[in-house]
Amino acid sequence: MCAHIVRSYDAELSALDDLVAEMGGLAERLLSDAIEVLDRRDPRLATTAAASDSAIDVLERQIQERAITMIAKRQPMADDLRHIMTVLKIASDIERVGDLAKNIAKRAGAIAEESFPRTLMNGLRHMGQEALLQLKEVQDAFARRDVEAAMQVWRKDARLDELYNSVFRELLTYMMEDPRNISLCTHLLFAAKNIERIGDHATNIAENLHYLIRGVLPGPERPKSDDTSSILIGRPKTE
Amino acid sequence: MCAHIVRSYDAELSALDDLVAEMGGLAERLLSDAIEVLDRRDPRLATTAAASDSAIDVLERQIQERAITMIAKRQPMADDLRHIMTVLKIASDIERVGDLAKNIAKRAGAIAEESFPRTLMNGLRHMGQEALLQLKEVQDAFARRDVEAAMQVWRKDARLDELYNSVFRELLTYMMEDPRNISLCTHLLFAAKNIERIGDHATNIAENLHYLIRGVLPGPERPKSDDTSSILIGRPKTE
Repeated sequence: MCAHIVRSYDAELSALDDLVAEMGGLAERLLSDAIEVLDRRDPRLATTAAASDSAIDVLERQIQERAITMIAKRQPMADDLRHIMTVLKIASDIERVGDLAKNIAKRAGAIAEESFPRTLMNGLRHMGQEALLQLKEVQDAFARRDVEAAMQVWRKDARLDELYNSVFRELLTYMMEDPRNISLCTHLLFAAKNIERIGDHATNIAENLHYLIRGVLPGPERPKSDDTSSILIGRPKTE
Repeated sequence: MCAHIVRSYDAELSALDDLVAEMGGLAERLLSDAIEVLDRRDPRLATTAAASDSAIDVLERQIQERAITMIAKRQPMADDLRHIMTVLKIASDIERVGDLAKNIAKRAGAIAEESFPRTLMNGLRHMGQEALLQLKEVQDAFARRDVEAAMQVWRKDARLDELYNSVFRELLTYMMEDPRNISLCTHLLFAAKNIERIGDHATNIAENLHYLIRGVLPGPERPKSDDTSSILIGRPKTE
């Protein structure tokens, strides 16, 4: 293949990366806005979240179309194909992050006028900041093709899972103390779960970058620490 | 292209479909088992769910590898590429269904020994049956390339969303009546949300089949009726 064609192909791959970075930037801002709505109770930001999420969806479709055109035109061999497919997977994870962040903003908007103790927000805010950092770091790692940095994000996700476990327990306790908190705390539970899942998508991106550079998925299985599926608090056993 | 090559290509595409059907069959059984655990409180089925989910994940990876090999070897034009990419998307939706069903089984296993009124399960069982039916019907539609049948599933999802809204309210009320129900009902809330999301994946599959056959996504936007992100029950406004 002549140098001109190779350069042009590289340019197309790099343009694909740019679109992914643009998507990722939007998803970061959307998540950051969602955390802001939760924290400052400013429902105005919630209304812009849906629009940002649509922009993310449009970008994903553009990336898919461009990838298909590239494959059809360039007819790349298996290795380059894997590269393009990996980029598509990363775009799909970012799209899910956008959905989850939009949902957090929506829930946060719904409870913006409810009063609840600031301390209750500490854990959630901490979770949000952690997820946002993971998302930023994994995207920087992808832009630099830095597998080690990506693996650091991958390992860090256990911390987010632990935070989620403790927020989950805290919210349940708060609901038990006063039934008037139940409706509000249910939204916070789902918001916390969404943040935890955003962390999972960041680790998916890290895994896909690992696969892209090293040709294999990182192993052994990352230790998952979200134990909330089997947590039961304060319910005495009845027959 | 000579007939022999065309036949062989069709055979490969059809083998890809067979793998997707195998994946889908596993996901259906996993969901059906998960509903069974919820309904009959038999925790034994919960333990097999994780294994089924792993088998689904392995199949998805096989489908991805086979698709990449096919594209590299056959170098299909844009239309055929879109076909293969659509199959990959459908496989990815089925993989998510497997994850969600596994999580339902896990939660159901955790609460299997808790006592709660049978009536509380009516809504959830109904939701589960509805989601299972959607999943079956959309897969049959895919196997027969029947866009109309797929669109019926697509339209039906609003019913599942409505069921979810009512289950959500019912569970919140039950939590408010007796704080001892909170922990248990939280798991049921997440299980209900997972079932609702399985319905969303069935509609994604329907949309992708529509795209595959008609070349465009169905529009206008499907009316989404999951209003629970903004439901607030029984909490009097405080300053």
